Amino acid sequence: MSTQNIRLGLIGAGRMGSFHGLTAARHIPGASLTAIADPTPGQAARLAAELGVDKVYTEPQQLLDDLDIDGVLIAAPARSHAELVISAARAGKGIFCEKPMAITLDEADRAIAAAADARVPLQVGFNRRFAKSFRTAHLDVAAGRIGTPQLLRSLTRDPALNNPAASPQWVIFLETLIHDFDTLRYLNPGAEAVQVYVMADALIAPAYKSKGFLDTAVVAIRFDNGAIATAEANFQAVYGYDVRGEVFGSEGMLTMGSLNDSDLVRYLAHGIQADTQRMDTDLLRDAYIAELNHFVDCLRTGAKPLASGEDARAALAIARACIESFEQGKPVAVQGARA
Amino acid sequence: MSTQNIRLGLIGAGRMGSFHGLTAARHIPGASLTAIADPTPGQAARLAAELGVDKVYTEPQQLLDDLDIDGVLIAAPARSHAELVISAARAGKGIFCEKPMAITLDEADRAIAAAADARVPLQVGFNRRFAKSFRTAHLDVAAGRIGTPQLLRSLTRDPALNNPAASPQWVIFLETLIHDFDTLRYLNPGAEAVQVYVMADALIAPAYKSKGFLDTAVVAIRFDNGAIATAEANFQAVYGYDVRGEVFGSEGMLTMGSLNDSDLVRYLAHGIQADTQRMDTDLLRDAYIAELNHFVDCLRTGAKPLASGEDARAALAIARACIESFEQGKPVAVQGARA
Amino acid sequence: MSTQNIRLGLIGAGRMGSFHGLTAARHIPGASLTAIADPTPGQAARLAAELGVDKVYTEPQQLLDDLDIDGVLIAAPARSHAELVISAARAGKGIFCEKPMAITLDEADRAIAAAADARVPLQVGFNRRFAKSFRTAHLDVAAGRIGTPQLLRSLTRDPALNNPAASPQWVIFLETLIHDFDTLRYLNPGAEAVQVYVMADALIAPAYKSKGFLDTAVVAIRFDNGAIATAEANFQAVYGYDVRGEVFGSEGMLTMGSLNDSDLVRYLAHGIQADTQRMDTDLLRDAYIAELNHFVDCLRTGAKPLASGEDARAALAIARACIESFEQGKPVAVQGARA
Amino acid sequence: MSTQNIRLGLIGAGRMGSFHGLTAARHIPGASLTAIADPTPGQAARLAAELGVDKVYTEPQQLLDDLDIDGVLIAAPARSHAELVISAARAGKGIFCEKPMAITLDEADRAIAAAADARVPLQVGFNRRFAKSFRTAHLDVAAGRIGTPQLLRSLTRDPALNNPAASPQWVIFLETLIHDFDTLRYLNPGAEAVQVYVMADALIAPAYKSKGFLDTAVVAIRFDNGAIATAEANFQAVYGYDVRGEVFGSEGMLTMGSLNDSDLVRYLAHGIQADTQRMDTDLLRDAYIAELNHFVDCLRTGAKPLASGEDARAALAIARACIESFEQGKPVAVQGARA
Repeated sequence: MSTQNIRLGLIGAGRMGSFHGLTAARHIPGASLTAIADPTPGQAARLAAELGVDKVYTEPQQLLDDLDIDGVLIAAPARSHAELVISAARAGKGIFCEKPMAITLDEADRAIAAAADARVPLQVGFNRRFAKSFRTAHLDVAAGRIGTPQLLRSLTRDPALNNPAASPQWVIFLETLIHDFDTLRYLNPGAEAVQVYVMADALIAPAYKSKGFLDTAVVAIRFDNGAIATAEANFQAVYGYDVRGEVFGSEGMLTMGSLNDSDLVRYLAHGIQADTQRMDTDLLRDAYIAELNHFVDCLRTGAKPLASGEDARAALAIARACIESFEQGKPVAVQGARA
Repeated sequence: MSTQNIRLGLIGAGRMGSFHGLTAARHIPGASLTAIADPTPGQAARLAAELGVDKVYTEPQQLLDDLDIDGVLIAAPARSHAELVISAARAGKGIFCEKPMAITLDEADRAIAAAADARVPLQVGFNRRFAKSFRTAHLDVAAGRIGTPQLLRSLTRDPALNNPAASPQWVIFLETLIHDFDTLRYLNPGAEAVQVYVMADALIAPAYKSKGFLDTAVVAIRFDNGAIATAEANFQAVYGYDVRGEVFGSEGMLTMGSLNDSDLVRYLAHGIQADTQRMDTDLLRDAYIAELNHFVDCLRTGAKPLASGEDARAALAIARACIESFEQGKPVAVQGARA
Repeated sequence: MSTQNIRLGLIGAGRMGSFHGLTAARHIPGASLTAIADPTPGQAARLAAELGVDKVYTEPQQLLDDLDIDGVLIAAPARSHAELVISAARAGKGIFCEKPMAITLDEADRAIAAAADARVPLQVGFNRRFAKSFRTAHLDVAAGRIGTPQLLRSLTRDPALNNPAASPQWVIFLETLIHDFDTLRYLNPGAEAVQVYVMADALIAPAYKSKGFLDTAVVAIRFDNGAIATAEANFQAVYGYDVRGEVFGSEGMLTMGSLNDSDLVRYLAHGIQADTQRMDTDLLRDAYIAELNHFVDCLRTGAKPLASGEDARAALAIARACIESFEQGKPVAVQGARA
Repeated sequence: MSTQNIRLGLIGAGRMGSFHGLTAARHIPGASLTAIADPTPGQAARLAAELGVDKVYTEPQQLLDDLDIDGVLIAAPARSHAELVISAARAGKGIFCEKPMAITLDEADRAIAAAADARVPLQVGFNRRFAKSFRTAHLDVAAGRIGTPQLLRSLTRDPALNNPAASPQWVIFLETLIHDFDTLRYLNPGAEAVQVYVMADALIAPAYKSKGFLDTAVVAIRFDNGAIATAEANFQAVYGYDVRGEVFGSEGMLTMGSLNDSDLVRYLAHGIQADTQRMDTDLLRDAYIAELNHFVDCLRTGAKPLASGEDARAALAIARACIESFEQGKPVAVQGARA
């Protein structure tokens, strides 16, 4: 394994891009952040100044053409992910792409093919796979420690709804629950979803429902090993960011997820009190660092990332089936999970 | 309020009947167990001897004709509940009936009408309403402490599957999930279920699926206030009896349920370890006592029980819709929840 | 074993007496509360009316002379306990005595001798021995599950200080920490305390310190198996009644005690919140019932109670050494723990 | 504030030195590890190669003479700390010194004076001050959230005893409990210890007791605001590294510390199970990073570190009093805590 420094380029300097940039610049031994690209005027330059990065581009392609970059972190808007993956693959860069990797299955297939053709690692930002509790649970299930999975649950609740007017279509399935769909696959290793049924609504911001916005959803999912799962999302948990998982099998159950900000507990006149985590980047900070460390390891060794393009496609297939289920009001088969 | 001793009669001396009989005989101040009826030879006599009860009957009607009895506890097989309720009402007895109170909505309507006509209290054995955490959660939600409910969850996992061959048809919906359907209504006060969708299977005992047996189920439920709920059951949790609830609203979340047998925690070379509860009658012992105390109070005061015949009907309406959803493989409207 | 009903008499109808009376009258199968004695005018009659007890006495001796009584519950002021035990033993009654059984070691020895001479069971109100977590911990330690005990902790914090002016002398050692001294012996089975050192003060009610009142204390205790323990008490925990234990050994640690009122947890905008227990009689309710059940069992079988007169004496020996340590400001040997 | 890169030098490349070196090299934005000194042949070079550090010295003074270094991390054996602090101050370097900063109060005074004379920041490795739960608890107490502290507890249990034969004298007080003495001061802000009493023994390795080795200790501490504290240590907790704190006051209680390795909980046939943390560097990893970040901030701004030389001296004064208490078998006044 080469111990040479890995040079990373960041595409997209918004909230998640800034966070990944900070992580890459500060917390990944053996890697450095070399360049930042963002078409929004001044955005890349501002972040570059903050992180001490020299190269700034407005066009992603400029960054992809930069021969000093080994791998790229794609944190642009979701709609552009697949094309950026394809371009990055053609440029021979290793690719870390925030979820969702693609919006359509066709896009996903082309992105996977491009990375395969270019023989570059393609990792997707399914950060829960790198959270210690979820990772250990996955290994426990894979080792048979709870027998055969029969019931699963994964949920995501964001702390506060921002600007539903600007929300991309089907965001609850394509950008939020996509995490849960991947988590359920991760906690049920080897199995694939075959059918979904959705109940969803705009309960927080009902005025936006007519524009296609949904902020609350429950999905029932049937897997090909018989296991039945639920995924659940909501965009406004006043108590903070809430990510939990559960897998129940013939020999036991595993639960993951805690809301607690630290191990401080207060006992006061009005009862017991503890603080919660407010941000995904706090709650899952270690997982965010671990996934970039893993990406850098894969760039070095050429190993296939633990959260792959195929994983992205499988989760997307569930999300697409959810959209169809919601539109038709009935259960829908998941297309081509095994494609 | 009269402080006169309340005399109870028990119909059914099987597992639950014996447990209710013991509770009535020992733990309900101001009440006593006066008679036991069970058609199984020797069953009533055996329990009566154990509990120091004088009167033993083989026919329930004999017990209903006994003028020394103020109220009856019906713990016979589920299929006989509704007819026993009707007979007990006609005999002028106050009625505590184990869940389910009825198997069909028509039966339920007739049972409710009979109790109303006779002006006798009719309480159903929805014990979770009397568990401290679920009760407090209900009151919190009713007081608006978590705003408007948006997402709910209730689950029941029994510790061990017994004799699926002898299991009544649709037992998972009619006898197990009926608790969860009631709990969801209890945690979403004032709202009623309008639609259900079921995924269910025989994963523990697949050989019995062809005979109509189901041991694992997930139900998605839509309520008329927009809230979306899941109910979940499984018949073999190797770690013990598992009953939990969760209600998430616009202003917060409440969770209920613990597996721990006591507040002892062990820290050993292989990690942290704690014991679990194995039996519903252990986990919910205080709730079982509280529901009978409430019944005796209602007998004294004439107050309408907190778990009423109408509650039983509403939960049954959900269970019946589940059966239809399972048979048809599609979402089904809940019939007449507001009837 | 006789299944005959056990008739109990209660001496003392104050707060604890009323609670024990209620428990005896309502929650102990096979036993009934037959008589109540209290010298305070009207006190016994009031409780007797509430509990449906027929016989009321003003003099304890009247109750002891009552041939219809099998066992007595002594819940009079602590200073009278030992003489009441002796009188009860002479009257041939089985004895349950609230802690402390005696105030001096000489008294304790005479009380033990009187019960032994009369061959009547003598049980002391060390209720933590009957709390499930403490009981299981004791059995775990006895079974060697955590190896040899090396460090122990037991604490008691009362929710609110009542009337320090009326407080008996050394109440924190003789009436509060006496529970912890017994608990430490219970969690370190077979070992005896050999030395104590006390730091104590009146921090809640400093005005009473000059009158000999202490409301806060820490005791370090050395046991003859090398284990070192701390016992800790305070009379004003604003969050509720707090009883916890910990035993650490060469093979692991056990912790006992929880403040939670139920398994309900709230997640709100200001964080995670849960309710606490406010009263010892709530927190330890099951233990209070269990100790009286055990007493009734011992009355029936003649078995030696699990919380014996000798246990009371051993805990008292520690308390007396604490008083001496506090007065002298130095470590003090525990007298005659093995007497 | 300068944003110039801070260049750190490490003195001592043993277990803690290697860990601090790794942290400095990888996890402290705006700082880099420039040189390593260790007299053990090859030790500095090995670590330098691993961390990509260029300069290697065998003599600490060589590193102190290096003009390219802004601050030093002292992780040499405890007996050399004070002299290294003095030399580093004379060389004008900012100083982070692992605990204990000194072994005698005279040494401590000279170290503090040297840093003051040289006007360099002097920080001591009391990492718990930088753990989120302990930090928040400190701020809560300082803000009066639990009223006046009355009872405190701090404990340290190491996972496994290593080579007691090579253990420095009084290691349990000077190197282990020194953390707890500081923590108690931190949780009782503004108060100082005035008296201690020790019970201690060699229970894990009794063969070494005659050589002055102690592996188990309980310390009772009286503070000048009336609060009473216990500190507790043991060198062999089979379940892992155990660090906990508790502060109880007139308005509530705070507890800190958790053994759990992650938020994964397993529910299996033999009960509930969770993994523990095994190493201090795992359990307190974030605190170790935070303390070095704080040190680098102090180097930049000239601010006085939150864990100062005076804090080190105050904790040492308690440790020295403990040694005296153990030797004399009686309570001992803490010398010059306010010096």
